[in-house]
Amino acid sequence: MATEAELKAAGEKYIPKDYDPALYKLRHSLAHVLAQAVVEKFPQAKPTIGPPNEYGFYYDFDLDVNPTEGELEWIANRMKQIIKGKHAFKVREISADEGRALFKDNPYKLELIDGLTKGQDEYGNASAAAPVLTVYQQDTFVDLCRGPHVEATNDLDPKGFKIQQVTGSYWRGDSKNKSLKRFHATAWASGDDLKAHLARLEEAAKRDHRKVGRELDLFANEPVFGSGFPMLLPKGATIRRLLETFITDYERRAGYLHVFTPDIAKKELYKISGHWDHYKDSMFPPMDMGEGGNDDEELCLRPMCCPHHIQVYKSKARSYRDLPIRIAELGNMYRFERSGVVGGLSRVRCMTLNDAHLFVRPDQVKHEIAGVLQLMKKAYADLGITEYRFRLSKNADPDGPPSDKYVDNPAMWESSTKMLREVLQESGMPFFEAWNEAAFYGPKIDVQVKDVMGREETLSTIQADQHLPAKFELEYKDSDDTPKRPVMIHRGVISTMERMMSYLIELYAGAFPVWLAPVQVAIVPIADRHFAFAQKLGDELLDKDYRVDVDLGDKRMQAKIRDAQLQKIPYILVIGDKEMEANAVAVRLRDGTDLGAKPAAEFVAMLEAVAKSRTLKLLP
Amino acid sequence: MATEAELKAAGEKYIPKDYDPALYKLRHSLAHVLAQAVVEKFPQAKPTIGPPNEYGFYYDFDLDVNPTEGELEWIANRMKQIIKGKHAFKVREISADEGRALFKDNPYKLELIDGLTKGQDEYGNASAAAPVLTVYQQDTFVDLCRGPHVEATNDLDPKGFKIQQVTGSYWRGDSKNKSLKRFHATAWASGDDLKAHLARLEEAAKRDHRKVGRELDLFANEPVFGSGFPMLLPKGATIRRLLETFITDYERRAGYLHVFTPDIAKKELYKISGHWDHYKDSMFPPMDMGEGGNDDEELCLRPMCCPHHIQVYKSKARSYRDLPIRIAELGNMYRFERSGVVGGLSRVRCMTLNDAHLFVRPDQVKHEIAGVLQLMKKAYADLGITEYRFRLSKNADPDGPPSDKYVDNPAMWESSTKMLREVLQESGMPFFEAWNEAAFYGPKIDVQVKDVMGREETLSTIQADQHLPAKFELEYKDSDDTPKRPVMIHRGVISTMERMMSYLIELYAGAFPVWLAPVQVAIVPIADRHFAFAQKLGDELLDKDYRVDVDLGDKRMQAKIRDAQLQKIPYILVIGDKEMEANAVAVRLRDGTDLGAKPAAEFVAMLEAVAKSRTLKLLP
Repeated sequence: MATEAELKAAGEKYIPKDYDPALYKLRHSLAHVLAQAVVEKFPQAKPTIGPPNEYGFYYDFDLDVNPTEGELEWIANRMKQIIKGKHAFKVREISADEGRALFKDNPYKLELIDGLTKGQDEYGNASAAAPVLTVYQQDTFVDLCRGPHVEATNDLDPKGFKIQQVTGSYWRGDSKNKSLKRFHATAWASGDDLKAHLARLEEAAKRDHRKVGRELDLFANEPVFGSGFPMLLPKGATIRRLLETFITDYERRAGYLHVFTPDIAKKELYKISGHWDHYKDSMFPPMDMGEGGNDDEELCLRPMCCPHHIQVYKSKARSYRDLPIRIAELGNMYRFERSGVVGGLSRVRCMTLNDAHLFVRPDQVKHEIAGVLQLMKKAYADLGITEYRFRLSKNADPDGPPSDKYVDNPAMWESSTKMLREVLQESGMPFFEAWNEAAFYGPKIDVQVKDVMGREETLSTIQADQHLPAKFELEYKDSDDTPKRPVMIHRGVISTMERMMSYLIELYAGAFPVWLAPVQVAIVPIADRHFAFAQKLGDELLDKDYRVDVDLGDKRMQAKIRDAQLQKIPYILVIGDKEMEANAVAVRLRDGTDLGAKPAAEFVAMLEAVAKSRTLKLLP
Repeated sequence: MATEAELKAAGEKYIPKDYDPALYKLRHSLAHVLAQAVVEKFPQAKPTIGPPNEYGFYYDFDLDVNPTEGELEWIANRMKQIIKGKHAFKVREISADEGRALFKDNPYKLELIDGLTKGQDEYGNASAAAPVLTVYQQDTFVDLCRGPHVEATNDLDPKGFKIQQVTGSYWRGDSKNKSLKRFHATAWASGDDLKAHLARLEEAAKRDHRKVGRELDLFANEPVFGSGFPMLLPKGATIRRLLETFITDYERRAGYLHVFTPDIAKKELYKISGHWDHYKDSMFPPMDMGEGGNDDEELCLRPMCCPHHIQVYKSKARSYRDLPIRIAELGNMYRFERSGVVGGLSRVRCMTLNDAHLFVRPDQVKHEIAGVLQLMKKAYADLGITEYRFRLSKNADPDGPPSDKYVDNPAMWESSTKMLREVLQESGMPFFEAWNEAAFYGPKIDVQVKDVMGREETLSTIQADQHLPAKFELEYKDSDDTPKRPVMIHRGVISTMERMMSYLIELYAGAFPVWLAPVQVAIVPIADRHFAFAQKLGDELLDKDYRVDVDLGDKRMQAKIRDAQLQKIPYILVIGDKEMEANAVAVRLRDGTDLGAKPAAEFVAMLEAVAKSRTLKLLP
């Protein structure tokens, strides 16, 4: 029989690797406190499971009523009382039979006990059989639980949690099982942490690119196109066009050669590249083009552009003098995802990547990767992305379970990873390393940014690849006339157009800098007699390639100004008698600042200066 | 028994509608003359069939030898003799049994006779049974033939034909049948006509976009992508980018709104639009995205963008004030074609159309179509396309066989056709009308250009559509608050990028005007000590967004200049000691003109003037 200290120590191993242990324990403990309060309020409620999650925890109950707001308030208050009661979380070991007796009225706990003894975890998945069963008790409430928990309820802050909502769920997530009530709560170490989280949530909801996209008419998800195929409406398409021109202009000046390669190829190509073996589950089903048996080719929508750019490299004999060759494309790629998980612009089934593949001599690898990092920094600065860090993404953790996700070539992994590590070290930029984040064919440098909720995600990536050049037998003739194999650098600087747009919409909350704003200037004539002047001014700006909305609707001036502000149009020009007479415009900014009347030419000069400099500000 | 005159008159009806009758008869007659000469040379040869084709005729023989050049020359000379012999083409009616006796040694003619009596034409296809069998005879040669022919061999010009080559073929085109020898000849009314045709052929071969595309590294057809999926190499991709920017800039200034809609949609969408019913054979096979029975949607690569742009229109409620709405996209479309018929850039399986759909009130239709015609004329002028004519393309000929190619709505066809005819009439531009050339949903104005062989083809198209707006129940709220149905104008101004590129490559024979040239300036440093200056000048031009090749190779100056001329680079700047000292460049044009040394700034000013004006000339 283990001591309580030993049992508690054993529970610690269940804390997931990436989870703050203190937060895990306090959320897990609060779940028990919530269960105690729920059972006190609804004695018929049968607790099932209640794990911590990203920002708090949930607890599922078999419960026949929908709690009212008043009842939820009672539960929250009762939780505070329990916390203040300074009850210890006591653990003890029990036998399966003791457990069955203790939970004889709760069929869910009985099923859990059966599972645990047979080697199933609490979700019903196969797992090692639990060595011992434990129960945790605080105050009057006893729960089957492996821990770990805080020492006592006074380690919890009564102001640090919030019950958010109750939704429906199913026992073990299976809609064929009994439906349950899931109590969702967010929980933090202190009231201040909770407040900060709620503020972030509110901000994230405001900035959610799906919401902003709808409000600003940027894009729409039309069911008849199928899930994961958003369409960009005119304003969203304008942003995409500007992003495309922006990055391809930079690339052209940096010596990239742009191509157009087909979105489709024979399955054969992806068999050679290894995509068919390592990536098939993410590919669309092949199309059989059989022509009465004469032509049995199967065509696939491409999952990536790499094998296509390899064909560009192979279209000519290459010499050491020709390298580096930097092949770039705004390339469509298709990714098979279940219809349930796609949505908005951030998770789609077809995406257009700012893709490029650099074919370089081994002695050029570091210099070229450094060049990509420079390009990336320049692009990020223009886009106003200031917070990011670098991750060296490696293949499977040698201490972890074996993985068939990566090509099997230890020497290649070692030398490619070393190459990338050295570039990062020499660049002097801080970075961290992570296992299990590589591409199947090689390691990556990933550029990690944070979203408004503080979650980290990859926006840009640079990969060193010695695998595909070998698979496709790429060569160049070296200075001594012998054939040599180039290294291939895969890189995406501004990610996919879809991903970057969703990121920027949330970064700016829809208030795009002038150079990226889908509409830069709203012109608001006060009365019908100002329409012609307004239209003429609008045409002049359009002719200079500025993006203008002239509001010839029949609303009143104040309503038109408000509409333009809601559309986050940077400049709103009001035209009345005085302005017309003086060939002037009354300038307001989208934040409400009133700059007063300015000669039209002066405004145009200001607009030009702001747009050209790509500043995030509205004044030069 | 019919007279010879009656039999000859009956043969006239076999001349295809679009074929010049005089040319048809002389080519048909020359085929018989060729057959006589072949049989005289190779008595074992068994003639099969020998019809006229686009520029001449062919004749297929069962023949066990490959004729040598000398034998072909003998045949051509013998044909001239026969022609000069002034032999009449005499026709007479025969019974099937007489025929079988006459051709008892030729199993092909026997099979033809059997077919003709049973109701099969000479290709073995079902047809009305021949009312009578006829044979034509000139000199000693008798052939089973329905005519028509010239009166006598002296109606033929002995200098008007040329035997081009002998290739393999199969009896009735079926590779399971006996292989035959096909004698190809081109034939014309006079020696001058023949010479003109041969000159056109030579010019066409020189300008063939596949040949020029290869020589200038513009594009390549890589078998592993599948037939009909060319890739644009960097120089070809540059031309495409310039064309795209060119037309979308014009469109933006003309009030078009560009969008990005998905290349894919559920099959359901094309069932509503009618593409599935009327156009399925040209669509790629659907992809079944079934997710274990939960999601049985089938996705199709889109055959056209129209139903997609309709979703943009439908994404918002529209008022009469909002119209016209001009939705544009460089839209990818996929077309199923047999792998055997695709090739180059002119016949592909995926194409990117300069597409737009205008949603307009009925009172706006004519004005908007006139606007499209204006845009088209402007674009054609910039592209140097000066010869074109307009075709009003209508649905099935009421006097012809019934067709299920078109939606069945006579009133719609009549009113839409009338609308287009009136626009053409009011524009004052000459046009002609043609049946059986419409889209399945409505009539079109097609803009017809000629290729280097004089063949007419459609480059631009404007369509008036009242069918899809009804199918998709499109509406706008009119000034009286009642719902009204818009008319949809489909239009492509510069066609697909692939089509336009192949057309322009042949139009310019690869010598693109400066604004479209993939490389505008070649810089040729004479010796190593001029490399740095050359590179600096190149970087300066690149920074101004010009397209430059700096030739740092180790060839001699003359070879570098020749390379640049072969690449049809408009300006070649030679840099030697004198130029370096004076910050000057020695300018040569691709046609060999030597402009001598100019200050670098003067050359840049000239380049800017020429590129900006989009002139076809190399000097401002």
